[in-house]
Amino acid sequence: SVRENELLRHIFERSKGLSTAFPRVVVGPGDDCAVVNATGQLLLKVDQLIEGRHFTPETPIDLIARKAIARAVSDIAAMAGRPVASLAAAMIPAGYPHADALFDAAARWARHWGCPLVGGDIARVARAQEGGRLGLSITVLGEAHRTRGPVLRSGARVGDLVFVTGEIGGSFDAGSGGGRHLTFEPRLAEAAWLAENLGERLHAMMDVSDGLGMDAGRLAAASGVRIDIDGGAIPLSPAVEGVGGNWLQAIRDGEDYELLFTSDPGASVPEEIPGTAARVTRIGVATPGSGCFVKGVDGRVIDASAMGFEHA
Amino acid sequence: SVRENELLRHIFERSKGLSTAFPRVVVGPGDDCAVVNATGQLLLKVDQLIEGRHFTPETPIDLIARKAIARAVSDIAAMAGRPVASLAAAMIPAGYPHADALFDAAARWARHWGCPLVGGDIARVARAQEGGRLGLSITVLGEAHRTRGPVLRSGARVGDLVFVTGEIGGSFDAGSGGGRHLTFEPRLAEAAWLAENLGERLHAMMDVSDGLGMDAGRLAAASGVRIDIDGGAIPLSPAVEGVGGNWLQAIRDGEDYELLFTSDPGASVPEEIPGTAARVTRIGVATPGSGCFVKGVDGRVIDASAMGFEHA
Repeated sequence: SVRENELLRHIFERSKGLSTAFPRVVVGPGDDCAVVNATGQLLLKVDQLIEGRHFTPETPIDLIARKAIARAVSDIAAMAGRPVASLAAAMIPAGYPHADALFDAAARWARHWGCPLVGGDIARVARAQEGGRLGLSITVLGEAHRTRGPVLRSGARVGDLVFVTGEIGGSFDAGSGGGRHLTFEPRLAEAAWLAENLGERLHAMMDVSDGLGMDAGRLAAASGVRIDIDGGAIPLSPAVEGVGGNWLQAIRDGEDYELLFTSDPGASVPEEIPGTAARVTRIGVATPGSGCFVKGVDGRVIDASAMGFEHA
Repeated sequence: SVRENELLRHIFERSKGLSTAFPRVVVGPGDDCAVVNATGQLLLKVDQLIEGRHFTPETPIDLIARKAIARAVSDIAAMAGRPVASLAAAMIPAGYPHADALFDAAARWARHWGCPLVGGDIARVARAQEGGRLGLSITVLGEAHRTRGPVLRSGARVGDLVFVTGEIGGSFDAGSGGGRHLTFEPRLAEAAWLAENLGERLHAMMDVSDGLGMDAGRLAAASGVRIDIDGGAIPLSPAVEGVGGNWLQAIRDGEDYELLFTSDPGASVPEEIPGTAARVTRIGVATPGSGCFVKGVDGRVIDASAMGFEHA
């Protein structure tokens, strides 16, 4: 229809000059495919953000676009990679008046994290009143770290120390700007520093999206180890501390988008990553066995592998 | 929820051994990102297939999955590229009973065309009765042809001859198996042959998805030429011939997924591409000006640039 053609024209117009700012982009939006130069081991991630499921209809457009891009970028960071380019597939309910603004915001955030939007697809769906929902499916292409390569979930070994960046929990607490789940900063610089400086002694890494307990359980399962976490050591976000400092709640909350990583006990891991605002906290150790267990201050040990927040 | 975890387990289980059959896949589904080896200029495409828009609820699951993958693969073919890996983001209405079968079919077709599914995302949406619709968003990563590079829409020059593969029109005619729009074969081999054998004399190429008239108009606009098509030369599908051989209808139908390409008039383009079943038909010429015009057998000339079928 005329409306989609207008939006496509808007997108092509705004995408001109992409190759100047991002020399790896050979062909941007408008041809059958985008053409991008990238080398070495490539990272690929797709993630969806759907109205009513991952954000409410009241969420500002800029934060919808930001979260859609940031979630996929966080997965590139979790591998210690660098974002190169992105694609957006959008479902737009008929009559939705903010499609141009949504695209502009997505394009801006994608450029911000180094992965300009090079292509996409728009599908009109039913009006909101008839059940149509706004949705964004974002694909990010990245490059693995040149010397360390991709840091997988499966590399943890018995004896590894277990760390987490930043603070955990309370991501949905509507603080300034609507909650950290909408405004988090993907840990690209932190992950790159760890890969660069720990090298092969950085054994395993992932981002915490479904809750520290469940995600640590996944890392343990992928690596064939057990992870023991000291509940009292978990760095709680102020949002959690405000409601009593409950680490049990914090490791269930999810959408922290912090890095969970393990390293050789001989590696020197700083308490703050140079050049970033992120503190690093040692929260546990990898032991023989399976699962993720958290020991509370009362000495009680809880199986945390099945705790967490599921999006799917 | 438990159900999504089961589906994810099913997907991980079925994805084991991917690297054996597809050595470029370093890490398949289950980590934060997929890791893939690819070199040279990369091609990226995302496409959506949404129930009620691109297929009816009655469409067999295998054909839904096939079409979702084939559409994106056809865009890789349109650049004369080779598919390397793919990602699937799925919206699954609550209570949908065929998610496993849908994944299996998508994985099978993706492997069939050389781009195994290396990652994905599942989002549960409302039940069908409440407006939830099945949707697939497919990303395909490809490599450009090693010597010719990517064949763009923008390379046509005045004097070029204009060709189309296969037959045009009637794609939605429910012949054997539900219509060609569900069962078409992406023209990977044909495009590779053209790039290999015509080299730099293959000037411009795209796939015909929105109708020959509209798509030829897009190629003309991207290249800064006018395309004149001889209506009587357009190879009509038997489905169109059955209803009176109307080329006007045929160039509007869309979803042909044939290759439209232009080449230097000195190039030797065969009437059939060796090693494939595809015939090649010369349908027109590139001239100075803009737009796409089709001359009928009665001598009347029609501006075809705005004709066609729009999906968006």
